[in-house]
Amino acid sequence: MNAHDQRFGLDRRVTLALPLALDSGAALAHVEIAYESYGTLNADASNAILICHALTGDQHVAANHPRTGKPGWWTRLVGEGKPIDPARHFIVCANVLGGCMGSTGPGSTDPATGKPYAMAFPVITIRDMVRAQAALLDHLGVGTLLAVVGGSMGGMQALEWAATYPTRVRSVVGIATAARHSAQNIAFHEVGRQAIMADPNWAGGNYYGVGAPTAGLAVARMAAHITYLSEEGLTAKFGRRLQSRDALSFGFDADFQVESYLRHQGLSFVERFDANSYLYITRAMDYFDMAEAHGGRLANAFTNTATRFALVSFTSDWLYPTSESRRIVRALNAANAHVSFVELESPHGHDAFLLDAPEMNRVVDGFLRAVETL
Amino acid sequence: MNAHDQRFGLDRRVTLALPLALDSGAALAHVEIAYESYGTLNADASNAILICHALTGDQHVAANHPRTGKPGWWTRLVGEGKPIDPARHFIVCANVLGGCMGSTGPGSTDPATGKPYAMAFPVITIRDMVRAQAALLDHLGVGTLLAVVGGSMGGMQALEWAATYPTRVRSVVGIATAARHSAQNIAFHEVGRQAIMADPNWAGGNYYGVGAPTAGLAVARMAAHITYLSEEGLTAKFGRRLQSRDALSFGFDADFQVESYLRHQGLSFVERFDANSYLYITRAMDYFDMAEAHGGRLANAFTNTATRFALVSFTSDWLYPTSESRRIVRALNAANAHVSFVELESPHGHDAFLLDAPEMNRVVDGFLRAVETL
Repeated sequence: MNAHDQRFGLDRRVTLALPLALDSGAALAHVEIAYESYGTLNADASNAILICHALTGDQHVAANHPRTGKPGWWTRLVGEGKPIDPARHFIVCANVLGGCMGSTGPGSTDPATGKPYAMAFPVITIRDMVRAQAALLDHLGVGTLLAVVGGSMGGMQALEWAATYPTRVRSVVGIATAARHSAQNIAFHEVGRQAIMADPNWAGGNYYGVGAPTAGLAVARMAAHITYLSEEGLTAKFGRRLQSRDALSFGFDADFQVESYLRHQGLSFVERFDANSYLYITRAMDYFDMAEAHGGRLANAFTNTATRFALVSFTSDWLYPTSESRRIVRALNAANAHVSFVELESPHGHDAFLLDAPEMNRVVDGFLRAVETL
Repeated sequence: MNAHDQRFGLDRRVTLALPLALDSGAALAHVEIAYESYGTLNADASNAILICHALTGDQHVAANHPRTGKPGWWTRLVGEGKPIDPARHFIVCANVLGGCMGSTGPGSTDPATGKPYAMAFPVITIRDMVRAQAALLDHLGVGTLLAVVGGSMGGMQALEWAATYPTRVRSVVGIATAARHSAQNIAFHEVGRQAIMADPNWAGGNYYGVGAPTAGLAVARMAAHITYLSEEGLTAKFGRRLQSRDALSFGFDADFQVESYLRHQGLSFVERFDANSYLYITRAMDYFDMAEAHGGRLANAFTNTATRFALVSFTSDWLYPTSESRRIVRALNAANAHVSFVELESPHGHDAFLLDAPEMNRVVDGFLRAVETL
């Protein structure tokens, strides 16, 4: 680790002191959490922002990814001069429980057996992920968060933070997210899981050191990837354009650019992601329903909260559409919570939150600065 | 074959006399076409209606399916007292070229080798399917069709009939259909094809008599099936309801009814469909773009046509949405063709055309009766 890494806390790991009690009733001992931090905690520990990543994200939010060498996944929002700024904020981002980028997950060694957990890993929930993050923040000496910020599954964690630790969260920014997984959301995830499990290399999850179910995982990624883009975005980006050929091949190679693109998405994904983690994290998302967890009424999740909320949705996001954000807003209103909401125009579908979105940046910047002055 | 079958021409096959010239430049000899017919051709041969089936449909449109025992797939529209009525019409429905219900397809024996074609089968197009149907109608002594009627891929064939054989088609009914496959349509099909090809049992297509790639085909079907339903339909039908359990299992069994439903769709599909046929027919659909085939202008496909058109779309169909039907209507208007169009309210997504749709029946009935009086 060089001086830069020391300042920014890149690629760090901590082992939680206590076993983590899970929603399933199980408890996980020796939980490791991999995280990065940027900036420094100020004297009154009031400038900490937790960033939560999406299904296939990781802790490398603003620094280069050590495996792919690519820039962090949210450098458009997080970095010097950005709305979330290491010059002003102490920024923490941790790989989720169940993940495969250093935090304990199905690919980790089960201390009881000395072998990878594989499918003996307990099924986890979004709340379990949040509990692990809270334990990490305890370790880092962060009591109250200025904000929890996340898009997609990251937004689910941010909402869950407000419900589980209301006094530790001054504000929540939830972008392109939902308070529950719909039947269609579950259906797409189930296709991905079945694709993985249909791959003989999956072998009941016991493929570590043998050969991963890359073919199944690639198919899962391809199916999911379609849901991250809009129909109009796909048409604008690819339409029916052919792949470096003048005419149809009358074969089964990738004739269309969109086919080649999807295949590439599948193939590159399997180099950086663990199939069993994909199973466990999609399961956690499918289990997520904050209303169900609070007597069937979403507002109950936020009763008497002092947390302030900012929600952002995108017009062409059909994975977690604006209607779901509006539902959260109605629940927050019913709970007398402070909430601001904006739907932003974008042709880029769900992925819009990861792309250049100046209006999103303005919304987040304005919201955080307002919370900081409270 | 009993007396009923004789009257209704169930489960018939014909071998085309001449080789079929294909869009790819190849020619297929000894093409068999499996078909059913209902009713009788009248004296002036003016009452013939061709029904075209969708991707996974077959010729058993109004009689029980011999393999599953289930009623025909369009008995709501076709049958005694229905808009398409064997008492009034001579109704023909053929398994498409490339199919697996009796018409020549990749699972058929290649006369040149004595073995199944498998991936040596030529890539076919929607127009090739239409050519095979035209040859069948020649054989049956049907010159001009009162109507070609189809939903989804069946509607594509109906539109292609008007373009390829304009003088043989008095009218076209295209329901929940498109004149081209969009990038998103291609993307979903590519996921399905990759799922099949990722199954080691696919074995480059040479699985006949060995063991079919059922796991891959089931995943393909599951992914496709989601696109046949609407988000609201899935929510209404399943929501987050659990599968015969009081609580989440914290495991990977089908907790949610929608998971169990999708798995069932996948498993039952592989019992009646051939994986290679799925590859070839989805490829034909992806290749379909009537504008591309006519100098880049859809109206050119219908220039000076005397054919009358009725188009029907459904509000919640996101596979072939209303916007695509409107595009066809605009092209038909530009070509000075007679066209009527209606968008029907339905929560059932693309599958609405196969379900109880009294308004659709009224539209088809009124349209056909008007054409019959011309």
